[in-house]
Amino acid sequence: MIQSERAGRHDEIETFFRERFTTDNPLITEAVKRMLAAGGKRLRPRITLLAAQTHDADAERHMQLAAYMELIHVATLIHDDVVDNAQTRRGVNATAIDYGNRISVLAGDYLFAWIFKNVTQFYAPPIPNILSATLAEICDGEVLQLRALGDLNVSLKSYIDTAERKTASLFAASAQCGAIAGGAPPHAVEALRGFGLAYGIAFQMRDDLLDVTADAAALGKPVGNDLAERKMTIPLILALRSGSQEFRGMVERLYAGREPDVAAVIAGIRQSGAIEQTRAKIAEYARRAEDAIDGLENTAAKAELQRLAGELLEEAS
Amino acid sequence: MIQSERAGRHDEIETFFRERFTTDNPLITEAVKRMLAAGGKRLRPRITLLAAQTHDADAERHMQLAAYMELIHVATLIHDDVVDNAQTRRGVNATAIDYGNRISVLAGDYLFAWIFKNVTQFYAPPIPNILSATLAEICDGEVLQLRALGDLNVSLKSYIDTAERKTASLFAASAQCGAIAGGAPPHAVEALRGFGLAYGIAFQMRDDLLDVTADAAALGKPVGNDLAERKMTIPLILALRSGSQEFRGMVERLYAGREPDVAAVIAGIRQSGAIEQTRAKIAEYARRAEDAIDGLENTAAKAELQRLAGELLEEAS
Repeated sequence: MIQSERAGRHDEIETFFRERFTTDNPLITEAVKRMLAAGGKRLRPRITLLAAQTHDADAERHMQLAAYMELIHVATLIHDDVVDNAQTRRGVNATAIDYGNRISVLAGDYLFAWIFKNVTQFYAPPIPNILSATLAEICDGEVLQLRALGDLNVSLKSYIDTAERKTASLFAASAQCGAIAGGAPPHAVEALRGFGLAYGIAFQMRDDLLDVTADAAALGKPVGNDLAERKMTIPLILALRSGSQEFRGMVERLYAGREPDVAAVIAGIRQSGAIEQTRAKIAEYARRAEDAIDGLENTAAKAELQRLAGELLEEAS
Repeated sequence: MIQSERAGRHDEIETFFRERFTTDNPLITEAVKRMLAAGGKRLRPRITLLAAQTHDADAERHMQLAAYMELIHVATLIHDDVVDNAQTRRGVNATAIDYGNRISVLAGDYLFAWIFKNVTQFYAPPIPNILSATLAEICDGEVLQLRALGDLNVSLKSYIDTAERKTASLFAASAQCGAIAGGAPPHAVEALRGFGLAYGIAFQMRDDLLDVTADAAALGKPVGNDLAERKMTIPLILALRSGSQEFRGMVERLYAGREPDVAAVIAGIRQSGAIEQTRAKIAEYARRAEDAIDGLENTAAKAELQRLAGELLEEAS
């Protein structure tokens, strides 16, 4: 039953995007479908539908709202494709593109506008406000991340604050809006929002971990990509805390572009014990997510949400 | 009286932005204030306030709404700063920027999100929906413009359609939202929206005209900048229609990057009679704007709106 619920939600979302999704702009519709076809687990819309289902059996009614959560994510990915001279110079995303940047900006803007146009037309307060506030949070988080690039003194606290804005805010909104649309009472809406927030932080940590532990084929991008972009990921922050001056010097040289040996830094992270410490942090936030909704009535949807949180931990092991 | 009304509205808007405007993000607030300090006539917020004043004497109440119109414009300008390899290669905006593109994208996104967050919180339907639909229109128009770059067969009809979306839609929304907020009855809201739409088309035509007639100092950017970017402006479209094969060949060579003689193309546009034809088109749309609100009760605000439309024509002469 739980198994079929999981598969079902995912397949329904895929079917929706394949067969029913369209915007007013055929170019944008195509671009979005191409991005969706490239893969993804549709975790945000699944969490919206499951949150709705904790109080409303008819999840199908909330498919459009769930789709907006994935589309906000897709629009931010499209904007992430915008590159800088600095980045192309360092060899990150060096593909020669002509009008790529301008088109990426416009496609992302159009998608945001289209989502808000529909949300303001078809959803009652406070849903339109939650979604626009979430987008502001995501931008805030990305600005924080950009400012922290290459800054070896970033604290774990500041990392978590950034992850909360940049990544977890959309998971929190996905759960919260699903709960509101499903008619959940205020305490359940708050609990589900809390689930999304903790889940999102654990999700970002797991994403950071995979960058140094996964193999390139499974990851779909080069291992150490975050390090090549001078991001301050949680395994790196914890490894720097472990205190080896030799390791810190190695990271300093990598991030100053003087010694581009990503593999050596990955090896250093592994030796420091930071992998295990990162897993412990993921476990902590996955458990917080499970606990956040523990007081809700037992339903298949609640069990499935808790299983999703547990899955983050398994994948990280 | 009319004179003081005009000065007053403009000064009040400036004072608002200087003294009371702030977002939740100090970096973005600073960036916006810098852009606003660079100049601008604040036409969009002035139109919002004047549209409100046709039915509500207390314009001050609508200052925040008026400010959102200017801020949507500012956010699109920030996103226009995003450049491509193709553009930097052609020497347009060749300033070496490092994280300029990423920061421009995030700053614009944040501003859009912040505006929608506030609008959905403080304004009743249909205002939030009008603003998000307008942003979608603007993006649509910019995509159309990007696809038409260097296409010498763009028709006047297609030019006007693009100008309507890219530029006039925000003037239309500025007038419409001001009218709604000021409590205007439906027929007056429609009339004021019609004013904004025609005004915006004339405004874009005038902007195109100044690119080939103004001097660089008055324009604040190089004369022929649109031509250097291979834009299909109205004077160029009308000059191509005039039929000289020699002129067409010259434009073809410029737009293929084989003969970068912008001055010769400007001279050709002048000789073709397209300057006078463009002025006639501006006059046509400025008059449509005046006519659109002719049926409204005579107020100082209505007279000022009609004066603004007339001003477009004077400036273009």
